[in-house]
Amino acid sequence: MRHLLSTKALTRDEAIGLLDIAEDMAAVQEREVKKLPTLRGKTVVNLFFEDSTRTRISFEAAAKRLSADVINFSAKGSSVSKGESLKDTAQTLQAMGADGVVIRHPASGAPHLLATSGWIDAGVVNAGDGTHEHPTQALLDAFTMRRRIHGAAARGKGLDGIRVVIVGDILHSRVARSNVWLLETLGAETTLVAPPTLVPVDTAGWPAQISHDLDASLAEHPDVVMMLRIQAERMHGAFFPDSREYSRLWGLDDGRFAQLPATTMVMHPGPMNRGLEIAAAAADSPQSTVREQVANGVSVRMAALYLLLSGGLD
Amino acid sequence: MRHLLSTKALTRDEAIGLLDIAEDMAAVQEREVKKLPTLRGKTVVNLFFEDSTRTRISFEAAAKRLSADVINFSAKGSSVSKGESLKDTAQTLQAMGADGVVIRHPASGAPHLLATSGWIDAGVVNAGDGTHEHPTQALLDAFTMRRRIHGAAARGKGLDGIRVVIVGDILHSRVARSNVWLLETLGAETTLVAPPTLVPVDTAGWPAQISHDLDASLAEHPDVVMMLRIQAERMHGAFFPDSREYSRLWGLDDGRFAQLPATTMVMHPGPMNRGLEIAAAAADSPQSTVREQVANGVSVRMAALYLLLSGGLD
Amino acid sequence: MRHLLSTKALTRDEAIGLLDIAEDMAAVQEREVKKLPTLRGKTVVNLFFEDSTRTRISFEAAAKRLSADVINFSAKGSSVSKGESLKDTAQTLQAMGADGVVIRHPASGAPHLLATSGWIDAGVVNAGDGTHEHPTQALLDAFTMRRRIHGAAARGKGLDGIRVVIVGDILHSRVARSNVWLLETLGAETTLVAPPTLVPVDTAGWPAQISHDLDASLAEHPDVVMMLRIQAERMHGAFFPDSREYSRLWGLDDGRFAQLPATTMVMHPGPMNRGLEIAAAAADSPQSTVREQVANGVSVRMAALYLLLSGGLD
Repeated sequence: MRHLLSTKALTRDEAIGLLDIAEDMAAVQEREVKKLPTLRGKTVVNLFFEDSTRTRISFEAAAKRLSADVINFSAKGSSVSKGESLKDTAQTLQAMGADGVVIRHPASGAPHLLATSGWIDAGVVNAGDGTHEHPTQALLDAFTMRRRIHGAAARGKGLDGIRVVIVGDILHSRVARSNVWLLETLGAETTLVAPPTLVPVDTAGWPAQISHDLDASLAEHPDVVMMLRIQAERMHGAFFPDSREYSRLWGLDDGRFAQLPATTMVMHPGPMNRGLEIAAAAADSPQSTVREQVANGVSVRMAALYLLLSGGLD
Repeated sequence: MRHLLSTKALTRDEAIGLLDIAEDMAAVQEREVKKLPTLRGKTVVNLFFEDSTRTRISFEAAAKRLSADVINFSAKGSSVSKGESLKDTAQTLQAMGADGVVIRHPASGAPHLLATSGWIDAGVVNAGDGTHEHPTQALLDAFTMRRRIHGAAARGKGLDGIRVVIVGDILHSRVARSNVWLLETLGAETTLVAPPTLVPVDTAGWPAQISHDLDASLAEHPDVVMMLRIQAERMHGAFFPDSREYSRLWGLDDGRFAQLPATTMVMHPGPMNRGLEIAAAAADSPQSTVREQVANGVSVRMAALYLLLSGGLD
Repeated sequence: MRHLLSTKALTRDEAIGLLDIAEDMAAVQEREVKKLPTLRGKTVVNLFFEDSTRTRISFEAAAKRLSADVINFSAKGSSVSKGESLKDTAQTLQAMGADGVVIRHPASGAPHLLATSGWIDAGVVNAGDGTHEHPTQALLDAFTMRRRIHGAAARGKGLDGIRVVIVGDILHSRVARSNVWLLETLGAETTLVAPPTLVPVDTAGWPAQISHDLDASLAEHPDVVMMLRIQAERMHGAFFPDSREYSRLWGLDDGRFAQLPATTMVMHPGPMNRGLEIAAAAADSPQSTVREQVANGVSVRMAALYLLLSGGLD
């Protein structure tokens, strides 16, 4: 694998192969010395054009546990903010000997441009680009579902027949996009639940059903309910009168959570707005996978960096 | 030792045990390769909700010299600033496999909450919380006094009978609070010198004398004079007409310094406002321990991280 | 070598010695594991009083490839911004056991003060001070020229007889200053081309010719044309009506680039303003050394840190 830019481009074998390596990495996290020498002498650059402490430190921990050197490059206050082009930034990192570049960028497609332009030999990981994709998030979500369902027997398996409901601001969510494609590839069935104003116009081609009725979707007892984060900065006044109204219509509140079967997983990519899109009782219940998702994020990112920087799965 | 949250909670044996291990760490600082493999594979997160470059890099140097991986998490621009709760931040760090969390927080009690809530298994070090405590500062101060007084014979010893005068803004000083409790535990006698408006209301229960007369306190020839930093941002116009007035009444100026015995240690936690709370002549004299305090800070923090992350002193 | 503060102070033997060690470091960059154990247990502090992500990460990569621990100290939000003196900052870093300090500072002379004041034993590298010097930039430029000219036979050689034209804002450029002195030491001949308002008043003593006619200078077919970055923040309205006018008079545009011999190197310290001081065609041509300069920057900085921190070339 040369780059990890989207889940849409992953084959089933590639996706399952990555998840299986992440199982090995998860085992490393259980050890006394949580570290492998695999990427010693390699340099991973976290190239963040948007703030995202959680994602950055997850990648940083993953790279360091593989013994890579990590350099954090925040675009704020850098030559990038003085107008340097992505091309020049890329060529600079290339010239400095970056073996891997983890990029978060507000423009959809920036990681793809970085990887395919010929500017750079380094492996590129998309850590979130605009409203496009966030593939390691979808992979850690799939890893989390697979582990909950299959336990120690997860290796080699997909998510065939699993029914997943994703709820919230689909329009702006790269997490939703990456999940839709990966879930399809792994054999799951996805329903997207959102108000009409928060559904993208191009969903006709997506391998997912669209619903505007949260209660009806939950009544079908899905295996997984994934609540998306409401990003206040994107909730322009036009969409909702207020957050209480949002919560009443689209939140996994105490009442809705109580109706779910005890086997339904409750997922959230974090950080959560408790009491808005998800009730505290749901977030903290045994059905919640929120903490597993974070832990699995490090394992999945270790697997991705391992594959990209040591040329596996080719 | 599981956490290091306050000096008030330390027993004499614990405190002296930590100082003795810090002596071992100080010896490592003298070596050609200033590094121990002790915490290889452990991850230490510096979780800073307030800026403090000096304290952060002291902990960072300490953790790196023990071969731990260090991740800096500044709350600015993170999901924390988007309203994430301390609980969710804690659980995120836990899930990512943090073995130690060094926390600085503007709210008194935040480190205690983090350590005792059950959110996290990591060892928690309080690196300053509100006006409450800053235990590693007090421990490095005690280490510095003990080394000056007992030299190579310091191991196992306390500070019995040592007379310490702490001068300045006691009201807002977590350094003063942490020192008062630790000095009492180690057998020293403490006098707090401050204008009445800068003395906390609850000092009745503190093991320290209160004085509003700096010259009288210095005339008793204490073993140690510790000047606190005046924080301009807290000096609301109400307290003092101007900084010259403060210096005249409460500063260790040239005249006062000249009256001190040559054996009296002059301490300051840094950064200093030269010419305000302390004259340059005092800060740079052989009696000044300012630089030793910084150096000892790394040793004391190495000892604390060692104890918390490898389960010593239990 | 104790410190690297300016190129003016370097002897020819010192400069060539450093470039030769950089050749060894460049070879390390080609290896599978791009890392040497040379500075294990040493601490390098990047003390940046001005933002400069490119320079900072180049030094960070260099230090990490020598296995040093790196601590980034940005003056923003630190006690420095609360008014701490350079002396106290220096003594703090010294006390924490910094073995090397890489300093960027807006005041010309700050690194020299740091190195010669007695405040600090650490080796000091000037990473750019005001309009004074930026010696590692000049060294990487010389390294790049020497490699292009002499290839594998570069070791031990200078730049005797090489003709270099440096174009742009000489007045504010520490890169130009550092280059002028080093090029003289290595035997090259330098011409500075700039509008009269952007030439320093003290150039009478510089070992360089001054020209105000770019086309005439290029017509002499120099071996190297080095374009300086135009820093918009320094281009007060007084100098130029607009950037198009600057480009027409002082830029290496397509027309001028086409007139150059195919053997003339085109250099730029980056980041480039494509279309302003340099045309894209020139920047991306085989004659351009822009990417080599960045790669060589890591090698040269590895050499500098190696020399300063392990006491070589004395």
